[in-house]
Amino acid sequence: MAAASLGCRSQENRPIPEPGPNEVLLRMHSVGICGSDVHYWQHGRIGDFVVKDPMVLGHEASGTVVKVGSGVTHLKPGDRVAIEPGVPREMDEFCKTGRYNLSPTIFFCATPPDDGNLCRYYKHHASYCYKLPDNVTFEEGALIEPLSVGIHACKRAGVTLGSKVFVSGSGPIGLVNVIIAKMMGAAAVVVSDLSASRLQKAKEVGADFTIQVKKETPQEVAAKVESVLGCMPEITVECTGVQACIQAGIYATRSGGTLVLVGLGPEMVTVPIVNAAVREVDVRGIFRYCNTWPVAISLLESKRINVKPLVTHRFPLEKALEAFETTKRGEGVKVMLKCDPTDQNP
Amino acid sequence: MAAASLGCRSQENRPIPEPGPNEVLLRMHSVGICGSDVHYWQHGRIGDFVVKDPMVLGHEASGTVVKVGSGVTHLKPGDRVAIEPGVPREMDEFCKTGRYNLSPTIFFCATPPDDGNLCRYYKHHASYCYKLPDNVTFEEGALIEPLSVGIHACKRAGVTLGSKVFVSGSGPIGLVNVIIAKMMGAAAVVVSDLSASRLQKAKEVGADFTIQVKKETPQEVAAKVESVLGCMPEITVECTGVQACIQAGIYATRSGGTLVLVGLGPEMVTVPIVNAAVREVDVRGIFRYCNTWPVAISLLESKRINVKPLVTHRFPLEKALEAFETTKRGEGVKVMLKCDPTDQNP
Amino acid sequence: MAAASLGCRSQENRPIPEPGPNEVLLRMHSVGICGSDVHYWQHGRIGDFVVKDPMVLGHEASGTVVKVGSGVTHLKPGDRVAIEPGVPREMDEFCKTGRYNLSPTIFFCATPPDDGNLCRYYKHHASYCYKLPDNVTFEEGALIEPLSVGIHACKRAGVTLGSKVFVSGSGPIGLVNVIIAKMMGAAAVVVSDLSASRLQKAKEVGADFTIQVKKETPQEVAAKVESVLGCMPEITVECTGVQACIQAGIYATRSGGTLVLVGLGPEMVTVPIVNAAVREVDVRGIFRYCNTWPVAISLLESKRINVKPLVTHRFPLEKALEAFETTKRGEGVKVMLKCDPTDQNP
Amino acid sequence: MAAASLGCRSQENRPIPEPGPNEVLLRMHSVGICGSDVHYWQHGRIGDFVVKDPMVLGHEASGTVVKVGSGVTHLKPGDRVAIEPGVPREMDEFCKTGRYNLSPTIFFCATPPDDGNLCRYYKHHASYCYKLPDNVTFEEGALIEPLSVGIHACKRAGVTLGSKVFVSGSGPIGLVNVIIAKMMGAAAVVVSDLSASRLQKAKEVGADFTIQVKKETPQEVAAKVESVLGCMPEITVECTGVQACIQAGIYATRSGGTLVLVGLGPEMVTVPIVNAAVREVDVRGIFRYCNTWPVAISLLESKRINVKPLVTHRFPLEKALEAFETTKRGEGVKVMLKCDPTDQNP
Repeated sequence: MAAASLGCRSQENRPIPEPGPNEVLLRMHSVGICGSDVHYWQHGRIGDFVVKDPMVLGHEASGTVVKVGSGVTHLKPGDRVAIEPGVPREMDEFCKTGRYNLSPTIFFCATPPDDGNLCRYYKHHASYCYKLPDNVTFEEGALIEPLSVGIHACKRAGVTLGSKVFVSGSGPIGLVNVIIAKMMGAAAVVVSDLSASRLQKAKEVGADFTIQVKKETPQEVAAKVESVLGCMPEITVECTGVQACIQAGIYATRSGGTLVLVGLGPEMVTVPIVNAAVREVDVRGIFRYCNTWPVAISLLESKRINVKPLVTHRFPLEKALEAFETTKRGEGVKVMLKCDPTDQNP
Repeated sequence: MAAASLGCRSQENRPIPEPGPNEVLLRMHSVGICGSDVHYWQHGRIGDFVVKDPMVLGHEASGTVVKVGSGVTHLKPGDRVAIEPGVPREMDEFCKTGRYNLSPTIFFCATPPDDGNLCRYYKHHASYCYKLPDNVTFEEGALIEPLSVGIHACKRAGVTLGSKVFVSGSGPIGLVNVIIAKMMGAAAVVVSDLSASRLQKAKEVGADFTIQVKKETPQEVAAKVESVLGCMPEITVECTGVQACIQAGIYATRSGGTLVLVGLGPEMVTVPIVNAAVREVDVRGIFRYCNTWPVAISLLESKRINVKPLVTHRFPLEKALEAFETTKRGEGVKVMLKCDPTDQNP
Repeated sequence: MAAASLGCRSQENRPIPEPGPNEVLLRMHSVGICGSDVHYWQHGRIGDFVVKDPMVLGHEASGTVVKVGSGVTHLKPGDRVAIEPGVPREMDEFCKTGRYNLSPTIFFCATPPDDGNLCRYYKHHASYCYKLPDNVTFEEGALIEPLSVGIHACKRAGVTLGSKVFVSGSGPIGLVNVIIAKMMGAAAVVVSDLSASRLQKAKEVGADFTIQVKKETPQEVAAKVESVLGCMPEITVECTGVQACIQAGIYATRSGGTLVLVGLGPEMVTVPIVNAAVREVDVRGIFRYCNTWPVAISLLESKRINVKPLVTHRFPLEKALEAFETTKRGEGVKVMLKCDPTDQNP
Repeated sequence: MAAASLGCRSQENRPIPEPGPNEVLLRMHSVGICGSDVHYWQHGRIGDFVVKDPMVLGHEASGTVVKVGSGVTHLKPGDRVAIEPGVPREMDEFCKTGRYNLSPTIFFCATPPDDGNLCRYYKHHASYCYKLPDNVTFEEGALIEPLSVGIHACKRAGVTLGSKVFVSGSGPIGLVNVIIAKMMGAAAVVVSDLSASRLQKAKEVGADFTIQVKKETPQEVAAKVESVLGCMPEITVECTGVQACIQAGIYATRSGGTLVLVGLGPEMVTVPIVNAAVREVDVRGIFRYCNTWPVAISLLESKRINVKPLVTHRFPLEKALEAFETTKRGEGVKVMLKCDPTDQNP
C-alpha cells in the first residue's frame, strides 16, 4: 500500500484502513493536485496549519467503494463516488444551520493533522461520498472539488440571471468561477489577469471579455471593467488575494453589489473601506464550500457543464513527485494523479 | 392614427398623444398578442377588471422614441425601446420596497380602464422604456414581456444552480419558464401537458424530460415526475391553474421546496394543504413581474437566449382581427402585430 | 423504573438505558403535556403515524445528566439540560442544508415508533441536549419545546421590526406566537379566537388587540383585522387548522406578505388560492422546528422572556393519568409532569 | 422667514416656497442637530460633498402640513408629519429594486447643494412625509431620522431573535443601535467605548454589558467581548470608524456572522481581511437608510420604544448658533431646535 506523503519522504506504505460503521473503504482512482498541496509540500504550512507529522496529501478525489460500514445504506461495493474532503466531526451550531464548512473541529483531507486521499486505499465518512452517475467519469468526480469553490463563491456572491460579473484572476479558481457564473445565468463575465495566456483560457471557458492588467492603478482597472461591460458589475469575485486587486474589486463593484474574496493574500491589507461601506458593497469571504457536491453531480450528469478540458496532465501515482513538480511550475491547468494501477482512464 | 380597440369596434383613429415631462412618445413597431388580450376581446373582462369603455389592447411591445418630455435625459428621438407595461402611479410602500408590481394604483397597459399600446403612436413613462442594443430586434424587445413572467416566476421560485424543476403546462408561459429555469442553472427540467405537440415545443426550447398526462391522479403525476427526474424536484412552476395540476404540484415538490403558481384558474380550489405545510413546501404566486426588463435585455444582448423561434405568425396592424382570430384558435406560439407600415421586419 | 406508556397500560417499568458513545443518560425532571400526547393516548394515531406497540409519551422535557457517552465532551454529569426531541439519524441533504427537521428518517420523541421521555431515566443524543444556565429553571427548559414552534413559525413568517401580525387562534401555540412575534419587534399583534377567556390569555402575554369571532365570514374576519390594526398585516400565523380560518388568513394578509400555517386540520381544504397568488401572499407551513434551542436559552437566560405563567398545573409522574385528563379537558394552559421524586420544584 | 444657513451667515430670510404637484409645504416644528450638520458648519465639506453656496442645514425634522400640491391625496393641511430627508429624483434601478438610498441623483436635505429644513417653512415631496399618529410627538418624529440609521444598520446586520450583538461606540448612533437591536430580539448586547459616561448612557437604553476600552489591542477587545457575552457575537455594529475598532470588529465576530460598518473614518484602512474572509464574516456598510419611517412610526405609535430621553437640550430657532455650539462641545445626546415660535413643546 503506497501513500503519498510529500514531506521528507515522498511515498510510504501504510496499512489498508478498516471502515467504521458510518464509513466506506475506497479504492482511489483520480486525485487532482491543488495549489495548497504544493504549498504544504514546499513550505510545510499554510497560515496556522502546520505539518508536524508526515501527512498524506490530496483532497480532489474520486474512487470506488470496496467495503461499507455496518450502518451504511446508500452505498455498496462497486459504487463509483466523488469524495467531499470536509467532514464535520460534531453536530455543532454550524452543522445544524447548514454551514458545516465553518465547524471548527471539521476533518479535512490534507489539512494537518488530517491525512488526505492521495493513496491507493482510503476510508471516508459515507455521507460525504457521492455516487457518480454512469455518464460521469472519475476525473470529473475529482474536479468537483475545485468546481465547488466556484459554486460556493458564486452562491455567496448571489450571481443570478442577468448578473454582470468581474472575475479578478484567471488561474484555475478564476476559471471555475467563470464557468459557474455563466451557468447561473450571468449575462456577461469579464476576467482580468497579468497573463495573456491565462486570459486566453478564460475566453475558452466562456468569459465574455478579458482585461490584461499591466501598470494600472486599482481605480483604472475598475474604470476598464466598467468600460468593457458597459456598466459596473454587481458582483466581483476576487481570486488573487493581492492587495491592489482587492482594492480594484471594491472600486469596480456597483453600489449595492457584492465583492467575494476567494484568493487569500497577506493577513493585513489596506482597503478603501469607506468607499465600499457608503455604497453598500458587501465584502464576503468564503471558506472552502458546503452543499456543493449534489449540485455539481447534477450538472455533470445532465452534461450542462464540461470540465474535461481542465485536465491538462496525468501521472500514475508512482510519479507523484513529477506531477507535483509540474504543478509547481504552473504548467497547464489541472494535473491529475491516477491511483488505480489497473485503470488509468479519465 | 389607428388604435386597435377590439371591443365592438376593432380599429379607430385617435389623436397622437403629447408626452408629459417624464414621458416619451413612441412610434410602435411590434406588439405581441397575449391570451389576456384575447380574453378581454371575447369576454370584456378578467375577474374584477371589466372593460367599460373602448380600450386599446396590447402590452407586449416595442417601438421607437419620436419625442421626449422635458425631464427625460436617458432617451432621445431615434432610440429603439422595449416597453414595460406596468408603471406605478404613486411612490407607495410597494414601490419603495422594490415590489412595484403590487402597487394597487399601478397603470398597466390594456388592463381596464388603462389603454394598451397596440396602435401607431403611444406615450409612456420614460423610466419604463428600456433602450434596446443594436443587436436586439424589436420583436425580441416585445417578447421581453412574456419572458418577464418566466423571470419573475423562476426568481420567486428560487431556481438556482443544480435545481430540478417541474413545469406544469407547456403553453407559452410554460415554455418561457423552461427557458429561464435552464438559464438560471437548473440541472433538469421536466414539463407536463395533455398535448404531445406542446410537449414537443418544450423539448425544442430545452426541457430535459416531458410527461404527457392522460388520466393520472395528481399523486400519479407526482410519482411520474419523481421517476423521470430520479428525485423529487425542489421547484414546481404551475402554469395551468387547473385544480388537479395544483394538487399534483404540491405532491410533486420536494420537502423544503417551492411551488410557484403562475396559471390562474377558479377563485376557490381544493388542495392538500397539510401535505404542503408539514413538508414546508412554500406556495407562492406571482403578479406579473418587476425588475425584469434590464435582466432580459442583458441576456438578449449577450445572445445567451434565443426567443426568436417563439414568433410563429406576423400580421400588419391593419389585419389585427385576423391576428386575434389566429391566436384564439391556439395556432403557433406567439402572434406578432407589426404597427409600423414602413418597417415590418422582426 | 416507571415509563409512562399511555396506550392500554398507563405506566410500566423499563430498564435504565445505557448511553451510546454520543449519548447522555438523563434523570428526567419536568415534562410538559402536549395536545399531540393526548391525541396519541386517545386515538393511537396522528395521520400516518400509528402507535402499534406501547410507546412512551412526552417530548417537552428537561432533566439532569447522570452519565455521558465516551465521545461526549460538552456535557458532564450534573449538568441540567433541555432536550430537543428531534434527532436526525442521517447526515442527509436536509441536515447538511440546515433543515434537519425535514429529514425523513429523523428520530422524534413520542412519535411512533420512537419513545418519548415521560419517564424517570432517558438517554438522548448529546448534541440535542442543551445546557441550562443556572438562572433558567427545568420547567422553563421544558417549555422551550412549545416556544420553539413559535420561534420557527415567526422566523418562517419573517416577523421583523415593525411587523403587523395576525395570530389566528389563541390556544397554547397561538400564545407562544404572540410572545415570540412581539419579541422579534412586531409593532402590533392581533389575535382571534372563539373564546373570550382564551383571548384574555392573549392579552396577558402581550397581544395588542383581540377579535372574538362569532359567525363572521372569512372576508369579514379579514376586514376586522384590518380595522383594528389600521392596515392589513404583513403576516398571519394560522394556528387552528380550520378551513374558514385559513381562508380568513389569506384574505387578511397584505399583498406581498406571508401566511404561515401552524395549525393542522383536514387533509384537503378549499382556499381562495388565486387571491393569495395574485397578491403574492406566500403560504408556508412549518414542520416542528430546527435551530431553536440555543435561541430560546439565550432569551430565557437574559430574562427577556417570561414563560413561567404558562404553567398552570403540576402533577407528579405517578399521577400522569390525572394530568392527561386535565389536559384533555382543556383546563389551563400547560400541564407539567414532575418526574423526579426528590425534586418537584419548577 | 428665517432660514438657518450656517456658513458665513447664520440666519437669513428666504421666501416661503410654493409646493409642486407632488409636494407639501410644511411649517417646521422640531429639527435635531446631527454631527454632520456641525461638520458642514465647521468645515464646509464632508468628503466629496462641498458647500459652495449658503446652504440651509437640518435633516432630522418634523412639521405640520400647511399646503398640499394638486396631486397629493394622502395628506391634508393640519397633518403633523415626520420628514424623510432623502428623496430619489429618478425612478432608476436602485429605486425600482427598493434601495433608493443608493440612487446617485437622490435629493438629500442639507447635503450640498441641497438645502435642509432647519427653517420656518419648507416644501418636500409628499411621499416622503409620513403622518404622525396623535400619540407621537413632533420630537419623536424628528428622532426617526437617527433611529433610522439604527434600523437600517440592524436590518442589514440581520439582527434577529436571540442574536448576540457587539456595538462598538456609544455615541448617539451607537445608542440607537442598542435600542433597535434589543427591539429586534437580540438576547444580549455589549457596547464598547472609551468614555465611562457614554457607556452609562448605553446601560440606560438597554445594553446588557459594557466594556470601557483603554489600551487594549483589537484582539484583546475581541477577547473581552467574547468573555462578557459567554460566546462570540454573530453581529458587530461598528459606529466609530476608527481603524483599530474595525479590526476589533472583525476579530470579535463569530464565524458566519456579520460586521456592519456605520461609523466612517479615513478613506483607506488596514484590516485583517483574511481573518474575516476565511471565517465567512461578512463586512457590510450602510448608506443612510431606506424604508424605515413606517417601521419607526409603528413602533412609536405602539409605545414599544421610548426615545424621548435622547433629547437633552432644546433651543428656539433664533438661538441656533448656541445650539450648534452645544452640539459641538459634545454635551448631552440630542439637541433639538424648535422652529415654530407659537409651539415650543416636544
